[in-house]
Amino acid sequence: MRMYGEFDFINDIRELFAKLPKNGFEGIGDDCAVLPIGDEALLFTSDMLNEDIHFLTDKSTAYQIGYKSLMVNISDVAAMGATPIATLLSLALPEDKFGEWSQEFMRGYHKASKKYGVKLVGGDTTRSESGVCVSVTAIGRAPLANIKRRKDAKVGDIVMVTGELGASSAGLRDVLAGKLNTRNAKIHLMPEAQVLEGEWLGVQDAVHAMCDISDGIASDLQHILDESKKCAIISELPVAKGATWSDAFAGGEDYKLLLTVDKRKADEFTQRFEAEFGRPLYKIGRVVKPNYDVYQIGLQRENGDVIYSTAGWGGFSHF
Amino acid sequence: MRMYGEFDFINDIRELFAKLPKNGFEGIGDDCAVLPIGDEALLFTSDMLNEDIHFLTDKSTAYQIGYKSLMVNISDVAAMGATPIATLLSLALPEDKFGEWSQEFMRGYHKASKKYGVKLVGGDTTRSESGVCVSVTAIGRAPLANIKRRKDAKVGDIVMVTGELGASSAGLRDVLAGKLNTRNAKIHLMPEAQVLEGEWLGVQDAVHAMCDISDGIASDLQHILDESKKCAIISELPVAKGATWSDAFAGGEDYKLLLTVDKRKADEFTQRFEAEFGRPLYKIGRVVKPNYDVYQIGLQRENGDVIYSTAGWGGFSHF
Repeated sequence: MRMYGEFDFINDIRELFAKLPKNGFEGIGDDCAVLPIGDEALLFTSDMLNEDIHFLTDKSTAYQIGYKSLMVNISDVAAMGATPIATLLSLALPEDKFGEWSQEFMRGYHKASKKYGVKLVGGDTTRSESGVCVSVTAIGRAPLANIKRRKDAKVGDIVMVTGELGASSAGLRDVLAGKLNTRNAKIHLMPEAQVLEGEWLGVQDAVHAMCDISDGIASDLQHILDESKKCAIISELPVAKGATWSDAFAGGEDYKLLLTVDKRKADEFTQRFEAEFGRPLYKIGRVVKPNYDVYQIGLQRENGDVIYSTAGWGGFSHF
Repeated sequence: MRMYGEFDFINDIRELFAKLPKNGFEGIGDDCAVLPIGDEALLFTSDMLNEDIHFLTDKSTAYQIGYKSLMVNISDVAAMGATPIATLLSLALPEDKFGEWSQEFMRGYHKASKKYGVKLVGGDTTRSESGVCVSVTAIGRAPLANIKRRKDAKVGDIVMVTGELGASSAGLRDVLAGKLNTRNAKIHLMPEAQVLEGEWLGVQDAVHAMCDISDGIASDLQHILDESKKCAIISELPVAKGATWSDAFAGGEDYKLLLTVDKRKADEFTQRFEAEFGRPLYKIGRVVKPNYDVYQIGLQRENGDVIYSTAGWGGFSHF
């Protein structure tokens, strides 16, 4: 018998709450909840980071944990083409973490907030009888017309990513092996949300669907395809130095952006991205008609063959 | 040497973030963060409930904990005269709490949400290697003109509360003694936010300052007085059955509303409240000029004498 797990629980919750009034909110299915107000949109997202699940206090500094807690949340706002404007931070701390540890945590959280002008507007602090628990809610804002959703991928769209992939996953291996100062370990411990890229992509009509890559391409692209009712074929991936192809495809916590772009505008568009940010936007594949009986994501080899997996490809699970 | 604690930490955070841009948010000092958008306001508040600090899983059911997690958050929205429209819920659960426990929790959370039409729009679930940790962010909405703040108490205002006090504190004693089914224990385990009262009070010009009573009058009235730069004299309290005067004055988690009302309109106003809700609005004292050298909250005895405490009166601390 299969165990009742996190995903069953999420499905139960969706069903339970489906009938409550929407109170102006758009339906679910994206990185953030969206509340349109006139021709503006407010966006909301929450992530919880828990000791021994999302971080190890003996392998990351309080500063790094604070920094990361902010970044992973505003990444979800960037993923929809909006600007993160504020967060609420709730923090449960064991007695011995009040003081130096909590101050270092806040310095990291502040550093990341300051980088993108994100205000801290509320939250809660409480004692914990067990480990550290961090919960962040990020609020984003944008013209409603800028908001990019997962459901808008079109057949023929070019699938793109905003940076190299797999570094975080490779970095996690380093961290678990006690190598905390490698380039990839640092990327894993202090990820960067692509806030400026997200804002820029938000105003580009050529961008159809978008999300961030928190659980690996294999998993996050599937979310776009599910919501858009399409399939995709991936032909190449920009693999970060020190990472494997598998890290890049199915590794977690890269926090790059994954998007599908109007085919006719793709070349001109990647050039403009490069001119704006001084580094490439990578074309990794294309959106195709749904063919779920055979596959959802196909992998095209160099010789042109496409490998399918009816079972899907594994995404990232936390250690 | 005094230990570095929760309040020091909060002060450090305020200082650290003071210089970041406000991004349209009002200043701090109220139950919620307020974001005006045109002539509307959006409100945000987060509370974290932690196993063995805010609840004991062997003394409350999962249903009760879910119910309470929603109510304590929307109480902060009601406290400013706004309507709670949505929440985000993040939940860290030990492996053995997925399944029956988590489903019961959600049924309680749903029951409370449904009561006031509050949509669940996002959140996160994660495993925990230790105890249960619940974090809720509530979002409220109201015409900007309706928003009641702590800073608006005027000299001469009548201080009022929307219900009897102390039941939750007395109920906590029952719970800790293993008596889980007394009337007060139930009030403690499943508090009711005064959502309809809050909405009604929001549209009344006679109401000047308002907040909810989560840490006891002694502590919450002090917040109003601090923000309004005033003092107050309390002459009577509506003590709930089974509670002591001290429970009513300094006990926590009553989640009634505390407000100051224009003196000239006070009588007519309490009559309208009673007509609307079928129960009394209690006058408990009056706002007076600041006289901080002597006291902030004075207690008036039946013979007319006023007792002062320069040190303030103790508020509620979690067990």
